Amino acid sequence: MEDKKVITLTSDFGYADSYVAQIKGVIHSINPTSTIIDVTHEISKFNIQTGAFMLASAAPYFPKGTVHVAVVDPGVGTKRRALAIKTKQGYFVGPDNGLLILAAERQGITGIYELTNPKYMLPEVSGTFHGRDVFAPAAAYIEKGVNPARFGPKVEEPVRPEFVQVKHEKDSIIGRILHVDSFGNIITNLRKTDVPKETLNIKIQDTEFKLKLKKTYGETKPKDTMALIGSHGFLEIAINRGNAAEKFNAKMGTEITITPN
Amino acid sequence: MEDKKVITLTSDFGYADSYVAQIKGVIHSINPTSTIIDVTHEISKFNIQTGAFMLASAAPYFPKGTVHVAVVDPGVGTKRRALAIKTKQGYFVGPDNGLLILAAERQGITGIYELTNPKYMLPEVSGTFHGRDVFAPAAAYIEKGVNPARFGPKVEEPVRPEFVQVKHEKDSIIGRILHVDSFGNIITNLRKTDVPKETLNIKIQDTEFKLKLKKTYGETKPKDTMALIGSHGFLEIAINRGNAAEKFNAKMGTEITITPN
Amino acid sequence: MEDKKVITLTSDFGYADSYVAQIKGVIHSINPTSTIIDVTHEISKFNIQTGAFMLASAAPYFPKGTVHVAVVDPGVGTKRRALAIKTKQGYFVGPDNGLLILAAERQGITGIYELTNPKYMLPEVSGTFHGRDVFAPAAAYIEKGVNPARFGPKVEEPVRPEFVQVKHEKDSIIGRILHVDSFGNIITNLRKTDVPKETLNIKIQDTEFKLKLKKTYGETKPKDTMALIGSHGFLEIAINRGNAAEKFNAKMGTEITITPN
Repeated sequence: MEDKKVITLTSDFGYADSYVAQIKGVIHSINPTSTIIDVTHEISKFNIQTGAFMLASAAPYFPKGTVHVAVVDPGVGTKRRALAIKTKQGYFVGPDNGLLILAAERQGITGIYELTNPKYMLPEVSGTFHGRDVFAPAAAYIEKGVNPARFGPKVEEPVRPEFVQVKHEKDSIIGRILHVDSFGNIITNLRKTDVPKETLNIKIQDTEFKLKLKKTYGETKPKDTMALIGSHGFLEIAINRGNAAEKFNAKMGTEITITPN
Repeated sequence: MEDKKVITLTSDFGYADSYVAQIKGVIHSINPTSTIIDVTHEISKFNIQTGAFMLASAAPYFPKGTVHVAVVDPGVGTKRRALAIKTKQGYFVGPDNGLLILAAERQGITGIYELTNPKYMLPEVSGTFHGRDVFAPAAAYIEKGVNPARFGPKVEEPVRPEFVQVKHEKDSIIGRILHVDSFGNIITNLRKTDVPKETLNIKIQDTEFKLKLKKTYGETKPKDTMALIGSHGFLEIAINRGNAAEKFNAKMGTEITITPN
Repeated sequence: MEDKKVITLTSDFGYADSYVAQIKGVIHSINPTSTIIDVTHEISKFNIQTGAFMLASAAPYFPKGTVHVAVVDPGVGTKRRALAIKTKQGYFVGPDNGLLILAAERQGITGIYELTNPKYMLPEVSGTFHGRDVFAPAAAYIEKGVNPARFGPKVEEPVRPEFVQVKHEKDSIIGRILHVDSFGNIITNLRKTDVPKETLNIKIQDTEFKLKLKKTYGETKPKDTMALIGSHGFLEIAINRGNAAEKFNAKMGTEITITPN
């Protein structure tokens, strides 16, 4: 018996309509024993970056082989590609707009395929709801053991929006702020491998400051600014019982520059 | 082994209370291997018509044999009947107030039974929460293979509210507007079989217009009005990048008259 | 084969973030065949009493052996203990702040254990998210058959906040109001065994009144005040088509005194 796989769903569909249920119905019609877990369906409408962050924050906790479906898809009905990405840990299915790539790259991508083979879609594909008609069947077939290479041609250059890009310059590393949480903590797109081990010189907007990378929130005094690799695997700037985003005037998309000391 | 069945839930209970969990607990107590999928629990309180539409929009995507439970039940505690409906595709369980009938009729009804046999209810049935005490056990027993004919007497005339009725008159067909979605698209209660194949003369409120039935949204220019059979199987009037409900002054319940050309 | 167990989740995490999904991912990583049911994640932030009531209202409907995880945890990161409670009906996992005890005591507690053994936690335990790092693994291991006695030392005196306490005095029984529902019905922390069988003298704030315990809502006339043991197993004071909380000036935490007649 193949290992039991899980399918996760992330979208901006909300909980008031039946869209999410339609997706789950399609998955169960193809694979009646599926286990489907919602990441969230309350991504703000068309906000690809927040969708990407939520997916990247949840994916590391799922078992090997999990198929992650994400649908924040302002380009549905246009020529934007539909993708299935295979990684060392699992699979990602959704639009080629950057939604999947942040989480997928952290798992080590081993292949990206365009979803073009109608055999793995619903018989009628609407122009507006690929979540149900294209992505859900693809995920259910992967869960059943179909190799995503059968879905369509290999994709070499998926869309990589600014929020997944990290620039390694001669003296510094430039990343972006991915997300500001409800406590005002700043989550950047920089990963452990992007960050020199010891003291960091950090620049956000016009403020420059120097910090040692901590291991936990507990290691600082109240009101101290600290830097740590958060549970999602990204560099985070926080103020113990304070609001870092406010202090540094940081928003989603703001640049952050790290200079090794 | 019998085919794996799915149970879906639709209600106006919201997500903040434990009502939905109580229903799921009862189902799992009777049938520990149930797979339960939420359609939505955010139907506005006591809005039977929206509940009926949401259920009808989701049901076609579920596998054969699925048991759909729906609870929008302003009449609970009165003499309104509780029903189990068997169709060619699956089962529907809920109050006899029109909530189930729209979705069930589309699947071809083969039998309707009143839930009167206390053997298939919880030992204590409250006057206020039949979702948990009556409908959940019935659904779990159907999933286990119990024939709904054992629940109680046959029902010949279920409640059919105005929103499920279509009048076929000599020269025209009169339906109702079921739902206006967040884009202002108008979804009617007319089905493919109600609609002549070619050009349609449509009247909504005081506006009359002529349209050809399209297959997809893509076939029209921006601001064009169009008619198509939507993914839910109902005739839909939409304006490409516009708000049809506003233009035609259409609301839930408004009449729509179709005259074949 | 061991009986199929269900895991339930109750929290104040909301549905917009990926926290709940992270918990589910951890559970499925340890036990891929888990069935996880949400009670609710919309407990108002840090409101232990409402969380305790929601859990206590849902738990009785779940099958024997169910593992209930609850996370309303303002003390996370402090020295508050993490608990697994074994009862005659199932298991409860969460912080030692009163959240679990109301529901657990109704099932008959047979053992309480502190979660201290790192073998049954994630390899890295954050200071802020024990729901994922400590409680989720404990629940998954219980579902797999691990005896909670292996998690850590026995706890003899769990935290019992005022809202779970009932004082039996010479002539009277003093309880607290647990919850006021959206109809203004008053749910107390008094159970069937706390309440004398026949007529009750009840005092809430400055109002005293005498009532016979009813079996159902149906037994009274509109506007009559009534007392009954509700479906959650607690004494409830309600007014047929009226608002009892308003009439008696009752809020969450208000004392209620019962004097047997």
